Amino acid sequence: MDHLLSIKRLGPDGIIRILDRAAELRGGAVPEIGRTHYISNLFFEPSTRTKTSFEVAERRLGLEVIPFEAGFSSTLKGETLYDTVRTLEAIGLDALVIRHPEDRFYKDLEGRTSVAIINAGDGSGQHPTQTLLDLFTLREEFGTLEGLKVTIAGDVSHSRVAKSGRDALKMFGADVRILCPPEWKGDFDSVGDWDEVLPDSDAVMLLRVQHERHSGEGSFSAEGYHSRYGLTVERAGRMKKDAIIMHPAPVNRGVEIADELVEHSRSRIFRQVENGVYVRMAVLETILKGRD
Amino acid sequence: MDHLLSIKRLGPDGIIRILDRAAELRGGAVPEIGRTHYISNLFFEPSTRTKTSFEVAERRLGLEVIPFEAGFSSTLKGETLYDTVRTLEAIGLDALVIRHPEDRFYKDLEGRTSVAIINAGDGSGQHPTQTLLDLFTLREEFGTLEGLKVTIAGDVSHSRVAKSGRDALKMFGADVRILCPPEWKGDFDSVGDWDEVLPDSDAVMLLRVQHERHSGEGSFSAEGYHSRYGLTVERAGRMKKDAIIMHPAPVNRGVEIADELVEHSRSRIFRQVENGVYVRMAVLETILKGRD
Amino acid sequence: MDHLLSIKRLGPDGIIRILDRAAELRGGAVPEIGRTHYISNLFFEPSTRTKTSFEVAERRLGLEVIPFEAGFSSTLKGETLYDTVRTLEAIGLDALVIRHPEDRFYKDLEGRTSVAIINAGDGSGQHPTQTLLDLFTLREEFGTLEGLKVTIAGDVSHSRVAKSGRDALKMFGADVRILCPPEWKGDFDSVGDWDEVLPDSDAVMLLRVQHERHSGEGSFSAEGYHSRYGLTVERAGRMKKDAIIMHPAPVNRGVEIADELVEHSRSRIFRQVENGVYVRMAVLETILKGRD
Repeated sequence: MDHLLSIKRLGPDGIIRILDRAAELRGGAVPEIGRTHYISNLFFEPSTRTKTSFEVAERRLGLEVIPFEAGFSSTLKGETLYDTVRTLEAIGLDALVIRHPEDRFYKDLEGRTSVAIINAGDGSGQHPTQTLLDLFTLREEFGTLEGLKVTIAGDVSHSRVAKSGRDALKMFGADVRILCPPEWKGDFDSVGDWDEVLPDSDAVMLLRVQHERHSGEGSFSAEGYHSRYGLTVERAGRMKKDAIIMHPAPVNRGVEIADELVEHSRSRIFRQVENGVYVRMAVLETILKGRD
Repeated sequence: MDHLLSIKRLGPDGIIRILDRAAELRGGAVPEIGRTHYISNLFFEPSTRTKTSFEVAERRLGLEVIPFEAGFSSTLKGETLYDTVRTLEAIGLDALVIRHPEDRFYKDLEGRTSVAIINAGDGSGQHPTQTLLDLFTLREEFGTLEGLKVTIAGDVSHSRVAKSGRDALKMFGADVRILCPPEWKGDFDSVGDWDEVLPDSDAVMLLRVQHERHSGEGSFSAEGYHSRYGLTVERAGRMKKDAIIMHPAPVNRGVEIADELVEHSRSRIFRQVENGVYVRMAVLETILKGRD
Repeated sequence: MDHLLSIKRLGPDGIIRILDRAAELRGGAVPEIGRTHYISNLFFEPSTRTKTSFEVAERRLGLEVIPFEAGFSSTLKGETLYDTVRTLEAIGLDALVIRHPEDRFYKDLEGRTSVAIINAGDGSGQHPTQTLLDLFTLREEFGTLEGLKVTIAGDVSHSRVAKSGRDALKMFGADVRILCPPEWKGDFDSVGDWDEVLPDSDAVMLLRVQHERHSGEGSFSAEGYHSRYGLTVERAGRMKKDAIIMHPAPVNRGVEIADELVEHSRSRIFRQVENGVYVRMAVLETILKGRD
């Protein structure tokens, strides 16, 4: 494993190895990294939890984390991502965690750099470490991914979380159902409604409504969305026993999810955040050990 | 001591404990922190000295400092401070140093998070670590806080430094006098003039004139302010023997203080900055030791 | 050596000592720094490679690197650079690496601070560590600097790289030739053309065309510049055997240099970046050892 670019390339065996190692690390296993490694987090889009989660994972692994301010870098002077990456490689970086607004930003980098690339979200493409932590949280809860019924609600067409998640869940024989306004469906298979999917969903995974994307649409209102497509308190009451609520966060309280549900007993939202650190430790450890 | 939210809650005994420990650290005592702790500095307002002072204090204590760029975080996506803090807690942070434009930003966090909160300035509210370093500097100079006469000059109504300072100095029986244009007085007790307060002040504490706040007021000019309310060279010459000049900085040279006085023999301005590191080390050490 | 302010002050002996030590470090020598030192990188202009290069150099030396966000600091509140530096000194910093838009920003600091200042680029003035890495790369390639013929092409009048480079190369008896539109020549001696300088240049050093500076000039076009003053593939073919291509980067592919030449066998562009880390380690080690 040289890079982590998409969940499909990681494949089911790769996924299981990461989840198993993350479980060991969560249980207290000491990470095994040999020499000092240099890493940097290149976030060309705002982020709190993913960036901070990687930072903590990197520190726990004993890596040297080199700061990079995307908003104050040579990309402002028109440098290509390829040249930036090659430069950081020449400076001595071993690995780069990259979030970038462009889909498949890594296509210009493949085979042309020896630095390891970890995709922390590419445009409306993929978000593999988010998917790994979602899978970890589901497996931790239900013991398996096989046959789970997972409902994803929100703007799936623009969601890298939804796309990575669907790709992975299908690999393991889970049943993924989509719930959203028809115009947000993109290339996803089917659109259900809450009455149809609630009774047998093991997990409801809500996506953040991106106000900045939809506020210009005359028909869109937060209240209207909440009552029709959001997880209301009433709907949560109709979820089946032991079913859980997930959200990649940040959360819009009162839009895609009722305020009261964020820390409800069904919610695994902050547990997902916790798990994210262990999953990222496992990814980085696997990639860096492979370089020595 | 779980948090440091305001100087009032810390109370006189708590203050003395911090000052005593800071004096030990300044004298070369080795800080005692057990395991590795993770901390982050969330500054939602610009800062050089407070943020850097905390950073150096944290490094000297051997903490892992996780970067947080407030201008490039999920708060831009509308996340509440509570959700940001809960997220950072889930990621594994032990403590957060927070500066925030809202008064008492911490009121939504109390009792709802296990992460330690250190207030590094809340709106026009409090600035407890600045007050601790001011007290440290005064005690270092005069051996006691009891009975000191301290004149605070500037826009006290908007100054968290003035408010925290007054609260603390009164606890120790110091006499606090305010000097400012009447419209800047806020809820402070009295407004003196230089002729009245200069002869017996042990310390004159100047506040930065916030140009950005007052430039719209037709009556305000830097020269006018300096000659009427600023500490001029002439006035400094009339201060009593051994009296000192203090300023939380950044300084507007030639406005609230004459250029020549910033590094005058009476000035403790850079000594205050030095002391700030030790006071912050003492605060963080006390809080983190209490968590183990 | 207390500071590194300009290449002239460093002088030929100082330069050779740094290059020799950088060569040892590149060869695997272990850096010798005694106690923990605190350093910060104050970049008041955007930078990727210089800032990151310093960061990695600092980490390899085992320094504590204190973050400083210039775009979010007290300079926004009108603080002078002098007061910022004095503050950071009081906080306990040993050294500051400073990039600043003002020529000779350090003139207000000299003799007035005990913190070590390393100039990482001042306005249109000097860029001494870039020059050191350029010299290192030339000496590594040709064994000596004596008698080398170096052609610098681009907007030399605004280029601190060109100015530092010329000053240093002349100290060692190298022959520096300038190639640029006449209006970009500034105080440089002569303006050649490619046909004249190509046949005997040992190195062609290209400068980044600063679009932000020239886009308003009606006569300027990227294509026009490339065909007349850029290093085209055709021109590179006419370079003499063993001659090399250099560029401080970031590169405008297709403007000052043809896209295909950036990673051509003649190019030392990424080698320069590698060397930069060792040169900066040597500078910092020399300065910090001198403080103990």
